[in-house]
Amino acid sequence: MKPDFSKRIRELRKLVKESKLDALLLSSPRDITYYTGSKLTGDAAFLLVDPNSKPLLIISCLSNYARDLRTAKVRFFSEFKDIVKELSGYKSVGFDEKNMNAGVFMKLKKLRIRLKPFGPRIKIPRMVKDDWEMRQIRKAVKITENLFQGVRLVGRTEFEASGWINKGVVDLGVENAFPPIIASGRNSAFIHYLPGKRKIKAKDFVIMDIGVRFNGYCSDMTRTFCQKPNRKQKKVYEDVLEIQNQVIDNARAGVRFDVLEDFSKKLYEKLGYKKMHSIGHGVGLSVHERPVSKDTIQNGMVFTVEPGVYLKNWGGCRVEDMVYIKNNRARLLSKLSRELTP
Amino acid sequence: MKPDFSKRIRELRKLVKESKLDALLLSSPRDITYYTGSKLTGDAAFLLVDPNSKPLLIISCLSNYARDLRTAKVRFFSEFKDIVKELSGYKSVGFDEKNMNAGVFMKLKKLRIRLKPFGPRIKIPRMVKDDWEMRQIRKAVKITENLFQGVRLVGRTEFEASGWINKGVVDLGVENAFPPIIASGRNSAFIHYLPGKRKIKAKDFVIMDIGVRFNGYCSDMTRTFCQKPNRKQKKVYEDVLEIQNQVIDNARAGVRFDVLEDFSKKLYEKLGYKKMHSIGHGVGLSVHERPVSKDTIQNGMVFTVEPGVYLKNWGGCRVEDMVYIKNNRARLLSKLSRELTP
Repeated sequence: MKPDFSKRIRELRKLVKESKLDALLLSSPRDITYYTGSKLTGDAAFLLVDPNSKPLLIISCLSNYARDLRTAKVRFFSEFKDIVKELSGYKSVGFDEKNMNAGVFMKLKKLRIRLKPFGPRIKIPRMVKDDWEMRQIRKAVKITENLFQGVRLVGRTEFEASGWINKGVVDLGVENAFPPIIASGRNSAFIHYLPGKRKIKAKDFVIMDIGVRFNGYCSDMTRTFCQKPNRKQKKVYEDVLEIQNQVIDNARAGVRFDVLEDFSKKLYEKLGYKKMHSIGHGVGLSVHERPVSKDTIQNGMVFTVEPGVYLKNWGGCRVEDMVYIKNNRARLLSKLSRELTP
Repeated sequence: MKPDFSKRIRELRKLVKESKLDALLLSSPRDITYYTGSKLTGDAAFLLVDPNSKPLLIISCLSNYARDLRTAKVRFFSEFKDIVKELSGYKSVGFDEKNMNAGVFMKLKKLRIRLKPFGPRIKIPRMVKDDWEMRQIRKAVKITENLFQGVRLVGRTEFEASGWINKGVVDLGVENAFPPIIASGRNSAFIHYLPGKRKIKAKDFVIMDIGVRFNGYCSDMTRTFCQKPNRKQKKVYEDVLEIQNQVIDNARAGVRFDVLEDFSKKLYEKLGYKKMHSIGHGVGLSVHERPVSKDTIQNGMVFTVEPGVYLKNWGGCRVEDMVYIKNNRARLLSKLSRELTP
């Protein structure tokens, strides 16, 4: 069973009508994939969604392979005026302000079209995953678990360990969803760290944050390992697990995501730590997507729960799992062990 | 010898003064790498270049590893207002319209700053490569040649062949500069094609367009192979080589890039074909960069020469090599054979 693209477009059309717009202009490649099934090569592409006609994919003429698409009409452009032509007649158009560059925006502003920022709402239908999407996500998670289980860390440099992950990813026929983070010792106090030449030691905290993209869908998981932890490392790690368990337990349908953020903040503070980043984020075609902040958690949503503690010049740890909301409760998508010393 | 970042910043400052701006706000990760040496993880980052003080890297607090940077002062932001604070006092700021999204642009417009599109000029210093950069580019080209030489195509699917490239790229410790294009048979009539399930046959034209990123710097090369070419395939291929040879011979310091485009268009037409895409583009930290169109070719520039012929429902071929301008002439950066049947 393949995704029901017409259903997705219908949801988008409903949003257009509710907002009293003439049309939507989508420009994020992930959105275009979601609403048409088209895979894109990186050339510029726009999807014009009119409530009364078939969606129109306006795509660079270099992407001439797209001509066989069935879920949308296709027009090729070689110059900006070819795009302008397709927009003529529209008075108010919702657009994706985070996925359109300021140069294109300034050119469109010169036309007599009222452009309304609409990016976050275009992504509403993507929040709740259907069965087909869940199969892709579960597969991405499964592959990520295998990567975690095979890795050897102590004695290798961070860079070597990340190279090993890169190899595994290619061997398994997938892609990295983002560059692997392998941060050891003092470097584990950095949140988004780039692997370096430091050799990993048995006494190090090692944060390993990896994710793959399977058939378009992402995973995002983190483990912290330590072969010979001292008392303080054990304590900090247990505290992080405690925060994660309590947040997962409180992530229920009907709860707003920022309520979960506040809840975790209080847990950090009670345990004597500072909250340094979000407690989680939605995952799907993008590694970071809705639900976030003001979104209310619903059945069918997928997001991470990832508490982390970072102590400057000492180190840090983070544990990140993906959960799926079913029957109003959060269920772990992974069975991967969370032991500090596996 | 490492790049001279102060020299690069001095060139940028000169541009700021000439344009009577107070400062520049860079937001392309490649530019920030070029001007500071900082490698970025994908978190949002801006480089504020003031003619009178050290450059200021304004970067997401998640990139806390950046605190050790020496080529710029570093400020971390967690909210938009942290960025606004750093911009206070500036009246006119040049920005990179292709590397800032419309959402950020609209927010900055609300401040009392005159924002001037300056993207293309920020990239002027990047056009001419220094010795250190040439070493990285030559290494990237060398690795790409090895990938071409090892590949087996006939009997494999396009997808399997691209998987083989992906593996080779990781084995050689580099990254893809872009997803490999492997287009066979009729699919070779598509310019930017995504590898599919088609099995490659001995009579097929197979376009293989690949590039790697070594230490930040890209390569971009294309070969077309055919094990058992017919007369028409041989003729079309020879014509493409003829166009490439003549364009390389005419690519000289002092010639504008669009003159080269026109020159190639006439060659295509003389031989009975249609020019379907640019004859080439600059390559460096980005796969596609200046020189393009109105840029005048200079010593030290690196760009591709890539004629291609695409005949619908029949197939196509493209040959792409990177050249370097030295002593006013274009020199091939690669020694890779251009034989149709190796």
